[in-house]
Amino acid sequence: MKSTLLSRRDLDFLLYEWLRVDELTKRQRFADHSRETFDGVLDLSEEVAEKYFAPHNKTSDAHEPTFDGTTVTVIPEVGEALRAFAQADLVGASMDESLGGAQLPVCVAQAAFAYVSAANVSTSGYLMLTIANANLVAKFGDEQQIESFVKPMLAGRFTGTMALSETQAGSSLADIVTRAEPRDDGTYRLFGSKMWISGAEHELNENIVNLVLAKIPGGPAGTKGISLFIVPKFLVDADGSIGERNDVTLAGLNHKMGQRGITNTVLNFGEGVHTPGGEAGAVGYLVGEPHRGLTYMFHMMNEARLAVGLGAVSLGYTGYLKSVEYARERLQGRLVKDPTTPQVPIVEHADVKRMLLAQKSYVEGGLALGLYCTKLMDLQRTAESDEEARQVTDLLEILVPVAKSWPSQWCLAANDLAIQVHGGYGYTREYDVEQHYRDNRLNPIHEGTHGIQSLDLLSRKVTQRDGASLAELDRTMSATIAQAAALGGDAAELAAQLDASRQRLVEVTAAMYAAGDVEATLANSAIYLEAFGHVVMAWIWLEQVVAADGQSDDFHDGKRHAARYFFRYELPRTAPQFDLLAGLDRTTLEMRDAWF
Amino acid sequence: MKSTLLSRRDLDFLLYEWLRVDELTKRQRFADHSRETFDGVLDLSEEVAEKYFAPHNKTSDAHEPTFDGTTVTVIPEVGEALRAFAQADLVGASMDESLGGAQLPVCVAQAAFAYVSAANVSTSGYLMLTIANANLVAKFGDEQQIESFVKPMLAGRFTGTMALSETQAGSSLADIVTRAEPRDDGTYRLFGSKMWISGAEHELNENIVNLVLAKIPGGPAGTKGISLFIVPKFLVDADGSIGERNDVTLAGLNHKMGQRGITNTVLNFGEGVHTPGGEAGAVGYLVGEPHRGLTYMFHMMNEARLAVGLGAVSLGYTGYLKSVEYARERLQGRLVKDPTTPQVPIVEHADVKRMLLAQKSYVEGGLALGLYCTKLMDLQRTAESDEEARQVTDLLEILVPVAKSWPSQWCLAANDLAIQVHGGYGYTREYDVEQHYRDNRLNPIHEGTHGIQSLDLLSRKVTQRDGASLAELDRTMSATIAQAAALGGDAAELAAQLDASRQRLVEVTAAMYAAGDVEATLANSAIYLEAFGHVVMAWIWLEQVVAADGQSDDFHDGKRHAARYFFRYELPRTAPQFDLLAGLDRTTLEMRDAWF
Repeated sequence: MKSTLLSRRDLDFLLYEWLRVDELTKRQRFADHSRETFDGVLDLSEEVAEKYFAPHNKTSDAHEPTFDGTTVTVIPEVGEALRAFAQADLVGASMDESLGGAQLPVCVAQAAFAYVSAANVSTSGYLMLTIANANLVAKFGDEQQIESFVKPMLAGRFTGTMALSETQAGSSLADIVTRAEPRDDGTYRLFGSKMWISGAEHELNENIVNLVLAKIPGGPAGTKGISLFIVPKFLVDADGSIGERNDVTLAGLNHKMGQRGITNTVLNFGEGVHTPGGEAGAVGYLVGEPHRGLTYMFHMMNEARLAVGLGAVSLGYTGYLKSVEYARERLQGRLVKDPTTPQVPIVEHADVKRMLLAQKSYVEGGLALGLYCTKLMDLQRTAESDEEARQVTDLLEILVPVAKSWPSQWCLAANDLAIQVHGGYGYTREYDVEQHYRDNRLNPIHEGTHGIQSLDLLSRKVTQRDGASLAELDRTMSATIAQAAALGGDAAELAAQLDASRQRLVEVTAAMYAAGDVEATLANSAIYLEAFGHVVMAWIWLEQVVAADGQSDDFHDGKRHAARYFFRYELPRTAPQFDLLAGLDRTTLEMRDAWF
Repeated sequence: MKSTLLSRRDLDFLLYEWLRVDELTKRQRFADHSRETFDGVLDLSEEVAEKYFAPHNKTSDAHEPTFDGTTVTVIPEVGEALRAFAQADLVGASMDESLGGAQLPVCVAQAAFAYVSAANVSTSGYLMLTIANANLVAKFGDEQQIESFVKPMLAGRFTGTMALSETQAGSSLADIVTRAEPRDDGTYRLFGSKMWISGAEHELNENIVNLVLAKIPGGPAGTKGISLFIVPKFLVDADGSIGERNDVTLAGLNHKMGQRGITNTVLNFGEGVHTPGGEAGAVGYLVGEPHRGLTYMFHMMNEARLAVGLGAVSLGYTGYLKSVEYARERLQGRLVKDPTTPQVPIVEHADVKRMLLAQKSYVEGGLALGLYCTKLMDLQRTAESDEEARQVTDLLEILVPVAKSWPSQWCLAANDLAIQVHGGYGYTREYDVEQHYRDNRLNPIHEGTHGIQSLDLLSRKVTQRDGASLAELDRTMSATIAQAAALGGDAAELAAQLDASRQRLVEVTAAMYAAGDVEATLANSAIYLEAFGHVVMAWIWLEQVVAADGQSDDFHDGKRHAARYFFRYELPRTAPQFDLLAGLDRTTLEMRDAWF
């Protein structure tokens, strides 16, 4: 049976026919790799996903973690899956060999990871956080921290978390109040409470490495006074063995709409339940320098945001494949009004084709954008000149908010359409698509909401370095347009359409800032993000059309047709959005609280 | 505390300031009523909703009905709520006095019902079905059927169901195979199985009246051979007492994403578990004439579809009010970049205002459209001339698919925004909005999917009686436009914008049919429904602007501002949709199965 997690044919197209990631092996960092090792890790991840992740996806949704006041119980299949993933050496897939990683391109590692996300986004959540945590400590931590925490995470003995938010500080991290008091031995003691911490309490393995943002008393106010600490559940002795229980305790579990298989916690530090070393406070180890915690976090944010975007894509993708399969099997209605003829598969109805085409354009487009961006990370990491480093960084910076938010919006829309294709069946828990929809609804919220991404894009990325990022994107899109125009025919037609949208985007952006009214410029940032995202996605589809040129078979014809769909049905949505933005509409600003 | 179910201020505006439903009391049918009795039923319904429906909304979501193979268990609060509603004489609110009803306008009855839907859409589902069932039997059944089944439903002793779908026949009712064999005494014996039957098995009260579509052997093929039967769970003796168990048995419960509090069943007829009267088959009583079942169903479909639309509105509305309340209380971030200043309520952020304004425009607009249509039903029922009957029927027929599908799409979008306003909290089951989102996702599916509504609109309603319905809508919109234009200022500006959209709608519709290619005309019916819906909604908002004219206070200013939002942010979405439709785009038609 064909896999309904992801399409390997599509992955092969995107990675090799389009992005030519095999050429990365010419670079020093990836010199030990080849297309064979890349393919091997994709095969392996798919196998692990099918064997260990998919089978308990529904089970862990129906039996979410429970807390009896002392212990959190998670169904055992979750731990088995985490162990299988670690034993396949996939945790450190993109990390340095010196740390025990496989030193694969991030692009390939994330493509492989998409299989486990598609199979079980909750269980893979423990891994996503562990990988992000390990990357951060590997980059900014000291040797002892790497030895004590990073290596056990790669080996699957420990998992990691990211503890940023507090009840009064979600989007507004400047307002955290968890404090870290220095001790003479160079360690710290933490006191406070964190909210929304995924994967922060369970008994699935030996230890949990919490990365915690806290303030050292006397530091600067706001975001400039935030430091980063490792606060493990159990202290780790000098020989690497598990030591004393730290004072990190569970205040309670949050109960979510979806992604129910991963614990989501309120966590207390230094409540006095435990007194490690006979002293009050949770033991914390400063990562890097004081007050630089948010800067470090920002270094990892690109990868984390791309990972969230790709997680949204994975759920959209598997829902798409399942709804195609369903539409081919489900008989309902007829194309001619003659009840004596047999019913036809619903895939033959124009409106069902529309819903499947829309999904195809969202999920294949989302996957393409995510892989494009992760390849930029690989180029950035291995840049062979300052010029290359500058270029890829400029492009990456402006694409990240899109690569996070666009799939979070449109691959959720894909899941919505997957339900609709299934009709009443899609609304039941007997089918998979209803869970994908619930699971995917988290993605527009965590790791920076849609609104936060839109401000990042419009107020930061668009203006930074005098607009160099936007200019780089403009040049890149223009190059694709020139390539497509040269092909003539349909490709040239799409190129002309994208060229008009590209120009409009650049002009409207300039007009929005030209007015000199920042409040009005930013008032509709969410609309800007949407319009911007659709233009970027049209470019990503044109890139695929160029890559598919000259090949005529079902797969490549399908790519061209999905591109056509996107240009005819989706890209035109941006025209009224740009009109609104160009007019610096103040409707939202002028709305008064008392009028609601 | 202000109710967060619905806004009574808004209901008063819509019913009295705008629709002037108090003038309906000049008509014979409503002569015994007055604004006081209308207000009384609204008060009563709100009270019942707050006291009996809202408190167990979360409980019945967390503890859905269970089936042990013999008995279905539903939490007792559901039965208590149904009894409270019946005891308040609300079941027959719009039915004839001669049947024991209150003979209220449908418009007022549905406004009152919106409170219970907003409070608990699952429990109110039992009532919605009972009311639809009672209306149908009252209209087409005989006196004995009314006595035995309708009156006990009004009294709250029985509930009703609508059993149409089968596993192989959902949207395609022509394909049902349940058969009804005639017996010499004029009764029938039914054999077959029905799917998706809500409220069809429970122990909440004395009896369940199933209305079942089935085929009498030897009848015409397809939809023309479908008859309608009353198939009660228990037979009813001549004196009205509960008799023998009929052979209607539960094959199983479906487990849904939302609306979990109401049973959703697979039901077997004539399986042989019971043998009423010592004979095989479920006893059924023919309603009206043979083979006219679907015609009868169509008579009730308008009211049922308006009820689904208003149910979607209710969920959107309560989510909106809750997110406004949350946005006023939740402190996060600041408008100036100075971390030493206190955080502000998020209602002050432009993007949050946008999300609340969008919700306001969807839910108040949806409620207005629903009430407008139900008032048309009242006018239709009490028409004082053939001309009036023709006019209101034409208008109602073309508006029903919109009034069903538009709120199902956009009030679900409102629930999505309500979650987003709540941030992470909105994704948890501790808050109400996540359930509203799950509950509301059913509405684009049942009672005719979005796709079915779009075909009803474009292939049936737009063309019927040589386009008389569309012409009537066009005249009605034009009249509003003229009124608004005469007011000058903002209203005139909106009028001009709507006039352009109105004209485009009419022109594009004509162009789509002018080509004479039915396949291409209908290929994008779903896009047509969306564009059509947004034009209708702009007109509904302009109507409200006209009604609010000359009044300047927070409530009326809020109405005008929401209208402005709708015209600036929403109506322009239709421009690219009309372009696509006018071009008779064949992208979906040309898509091949092998390309997915």
